Amino acid sequence: MKKDLHPLFYPRSAAVLGAVADPEKVGFNIFESIVYGGFKGPLYPIHPKLKNILGYDVYPSLDKVPGPVDVAVIALNQLSTVNVLEECAQCGVKGILSIAGGFGEVGAEGVKLENKLTERANELGIPLIGPNTLGFINDDGNFYATFYPLRLIKGGVSIISQSGGMGLTIMQKALDEMMGMNKWIGVGNRAALEFSDYLTYLGDDPATRVIGVFMEGSEDALKFVKLIREICLKKPVVVFKAGRTKESDYMAMTHTGSLAGPYRLYKDILKQNGAIVADTVEELVACCKALSLSQLPEGKRVGVLTHTAGPSIVAADYMLQLGCELPKYAPETYQKVRDVIGQNPPVVLKNPLDAAGLGFPALTYGRIADAVLGDPSVDIMMAIYCLHKNWRFPSQEIIDVRKKWNKPALAYYVSTVGDSAKDREILQKEGVPLYINAREAARAVYALYEYKQIISSQTQG
Amino acid sequence: MKKDLHPLFYPRSAAVLGAVADPEKVGFNIFESIVYGGFKGPLYPIHPKLKNILGYDVYPSLDKVPGPVDVAVIALNQLSTVNVLEECAQCGVKGILSIAGGFGEVGAEGVKLENKLTERANELGIPLIGPNTLGFINDDGNFYATFYPLRLIKGGVSIISQSGGMGLTIMQKALDEMMGMNKWIGVGNRAALEFSDYLTYLGDDPATRVIGVFMEGSEDALKFVKLIREICLKKPVVVFKAGRTKESDYMAMTHTGSLAGPYRLYKDILKQNGAIVADTVEELVACCKALSLSQLPEGKRVGVLTHTAGPSIVAADYMLQLGCELPKYAPETYQKVRDVIGQNPPVVLKNPLDAAGLGFPALTYGRIADAVLGDPSVDIMMAIYCLHKNWRFPSQEIIDVRKKWNKPALAYYVSTVGDSAKDREILQKEGVPLYINAREAARAVYALYEYKQIISSQTQG
Repeated sequence: MKKDLHPLFYPRSAAVLGAVADPEKVGFNIFESIVYGGFKGPLYPIHPKLKNILGYDVYPSLDKVPGPVDVAVIALNQLSTVNVLEECAQCGVKGILSIAGGFGEVGAEGVKLENKLTERANELGIPLIGPNTLGFINDDGNFYATFYPLRLIKGGVSIISQSGGMGLTIMQKALDEMMGMNKWIGVGNRAALEFSDYLTYLGDDPATRVIGVFMEGSEDALKFVKLIREICLKKPVVVFKAGRTKESDYMAMTHTGSLAGPYRLYKDILKQNGAIVADTVEELVACCKALSLSQLPEGKRVGVLTHTAGPSIVAADYMLQLGCELPKYAPETYQKVRDVIGQNPPVVLKNPLDAAGLGFPALTYGRIADAVLGDPSVDIMMAIYCLHKNWRFPSQEIIDVRKKWNKPALAYYVSTVGDSAKDREILQKEGVPLYINAREAARAVYALYEYKQIISSQTQG
Repeated sequence: MKKDLHPLFYPRSAAVLGAVADPEKVGFNIFESIVYGGFKGPLYPIHPKLKNILGYDVYPSLDKVPGPVDVAVIALNQLSTVNVLEECAQCGVKGILSIAGGFGEVGAEGVKLENKLTERANELGIPLIGPNTLGFINDDGNFYATFYPLRLIKGGVSIISQSGGMGLTIMQKALDEMMGMNKWIGVGNRAALEFSDYLTYLGDDPATRVIGVFMEGSEDALKFVKLIREICLKKPVVVFKAGRTKESDYMAMTHTGSLAGPYRLYKDILKQNGAIVADTVEELVACCKALSLSQLPEGKRVGVLTHTAGPSIVAADYMLQLGCELPKYAPETYQKVRDVIGQNPPVVLKNPLDAAGLGFPALTYGRIADAVLGDPSVDIMMAIYCLHKNWRFPSQEIIDVRKKWNKPALAYYVSTVGDSAKDREILQKEGVPLYINAREAARAVYALYEYKQIISSQTQG
């Protein structure tokens, strides 16, 4: 039975049980985060004694609140969390976020308590996120129900994370990369809601264009994988899984009480069922970003353009290892390039096309890029450019060429300083993901091809 | 015969042949870079017509300069570069930096010209860097002879890069990581000076504590490897090599005219001879940074401390894959921890030690870190901490514990925002390298162990 998670993610009203005025307490942080996250509906802090928090009237208990409550955010300790469930049900709460730890992750006593929480929530028919979680964010609905309030950039990527710390890592990397995000869910112990429930919800969610998952392990692996098989036809699912060794499997188990499994097996099964598998957080974000911004290539033949050989060789290395091809350009392409940089250019013309010093000026770079992406054997272009004191990045030129040929292009700028941030915004707004790291750029190119394959093969099969 | 590169890197005076006043030209950029790099000796721009550049008197030719010239920076085209060698010799020049491309990398004609350059420089006995290079930086001698003038942070890592673009990538990553650098050399086509010459020089250079190398390939691989074998006993040598596939081997060949080779073979040979091999620029910088800042561990047993499980599991994954061990802590260690966070802490005590919410306050974190690093089975500590709105990073506490136990510690902060930059400075000044990436942190830990092994085994052997 599909659980209705919509009221949880898009509540019309919310209450925070255990809201406090002490800025060092989670009960304050999560309340503050909802306030400053711009939540539009009525918001009720609940505390037996306090009168006012951040200008909001405080209510002594949930049943004293002067209106319906869609979501109850429970920032109480683990025992009180279980005890308050009945009240939530009586007040017509449609979804619960349960923050406190002290459940399945702490041993036998905690497991018992967690079972009680799960059973009761299920009996009452209220979907419950957590426990033992940093919370969740729905940027699309302005609902920042987390005590780690980073402001997301608006976009189409939604993240499911089994770990708060790794979820935060993903969020921070997404900000660095200017990857637009839609929803971020710290699933915590997954007591009442499993990966598959979140996956189902995000699969149906029209605001989510790409789903990214960090997982340590899961009890419903089979269900999870079967779901990916369905959902990947609608939108890409990128998975980064921890637990590559027996020892770290054990760690994962003691963390969220989940059964991990042999990494290779997991990886193969995930791939066979249409997931795109990332090996690091950086790869996860690189893939999600490309898939949310770029059109897909028809094939895996990459045209590389650069004015500096080293980074193109390193990027080519990674791409070839992943399975991309770097085709020879057509004679007409080389002729076009010669028409731009001279009939006897001081470089060997090949793919990667290295225009050396001649490739610096943005207009020249743009004309060479036009030749590369226009080459009939090129499915996708990687445009490499190196920070330079005198020359601006050829961002508008790359955008124009991409539009002209209606093929995907990625930019890889060797630049962590200077105004690459400004150029990132310009490029990504126009569907050209920008990377500043050869490995991430290469992984992103291959992810676009992988997803093209996934749709094609599954449509045929 | 050892070539005397000291006057090249520490010139008492320098001339820039082909200096111009046009800020869009390399001949200006490199002159400007030397000026603003803070070069202390006399500096002579050379140009047939100009009178003044940036307040410096311009001389029509090298022989008109009113004093001796140690280094001639040649920013002329490739033909003029060859032609000006005699004049350099007549004026007593002790070292040459040759910038222009158009040599070995462009085909048969260029190879001829390069041979001429090399032969003449060798006959004249003048060491020559390049051609086809971005130049070099000796921060220690305030000599910024490059047209890519990034300001380095002072420190002990020197970099040899076969590619300007990758060299720049390394420099930028070093700045992001606040890795102190000493010298940076873009070797270009290595016409007259090979990797082995630079390695020999840096091996003897008292200011260089760690050597990092990016290479595509080399004709003198055997000599290079034999040198590493010697030098690694004095200081660590970290190598990142491109060219993992046949195709990228060909690219490397057409780039700098070097013979590349099978990657695995290279990697094995390098490791067997005492190099630390990195797989990415990020790893190269992570290893160099740790090796330049941290003391070495006695063994590979890592004590991990965290208040957030996910990142510790991911980091442990990478460390275990690399070959580290995560030992069980001693009963006394667990007792010490219980004395701090309570006799029945709401977490399973193990390694990684996850103090959950109790681990947030810096003072508490410090006391737990004391227990972890004090554990007799722990050789090195990885201290993980996650950005938090209310709690400061436990940097001083980690530093104190490291000093108390006189064992190495690394910090891995999940934080690309907030004031991790300030904390990085505090930590690294006291010998605790900070990483914000699980993989890089793990690679760094293992590099410290690798180097310990290298010294131990070679001392015994």
